[in-house]
Amino acid sequence: MYLSHGTLSVPAAHIADVRLLLQRVASATRQENGCLLYLVSEQLEHPGAFVISEQWDSLEAMQTHLAQPAVGEAVAAVRSMGVSDLTITAWEAVGELRVM
Amino acid sequence: MYLSHGTLSVPAAHIADVRLLLQRVASATRQENGCLLYLVSEQLEHPGAFVISEQWDSLEAMQTHLAQPAVGEAVAAVRSMGVSDLTITAWEAVGELRVM
Repeated sequence: MYLSHGTLSVPAAHIADVRLLLQRVASATRQENGCLLYLVSEQLEHPGAFVISEQWDSLEAMQTHLAQPAVGEAVAAVRSMGVSDLTITAWEAVGELRVM
Repeated sequence: MYLSHGTLSVPAAHIADVRLLLQRVASATRQENGCLLYLVSEQLEHPGAFVISEQWDSLEAMQTHLAQPAVGEAVAAVRSMGVSDLTITAWEAVGELRVM
């Protein structure tokens, strides 16, 4: 299983737009093959600081997702709104431990 | 490195309280040994549905955190507010891939 953790901070003028954009991306991505989880959320302490939490059943599924035109368009859209700190990091997740 | 992903859904009457509680937990946890990241966020589509995103430098550090009295108290507090779906799952993260 593969996990991905994304973050971005959005200038105040564009926060409402990005809330909608991320919900659209999430809704579409959840329909993709191999997508186990795709959550979009906003940090409690920092309005406009978003977190994207992904789980994929394979590296191939995640890479197929990243190659979708809609992903590139969403990245370009947030950059055009002044987002300069977008990060996405992925890992293979092993040894699952159910804490609670 | 170890990743942890937590989720909980809070009844409407307690959402504001839990927003504050999670911020207090996050602030304290970020001071703990081995805590690389501790983000608390709220799903865009679901007010009151929270996400806890953690990164720890070792399994021992994560387990030491989980054994803190404050963690047990926070879990008891949200359960007393009617939270019945708290989940926390952890994995060892290998093969880091910086996507963006």
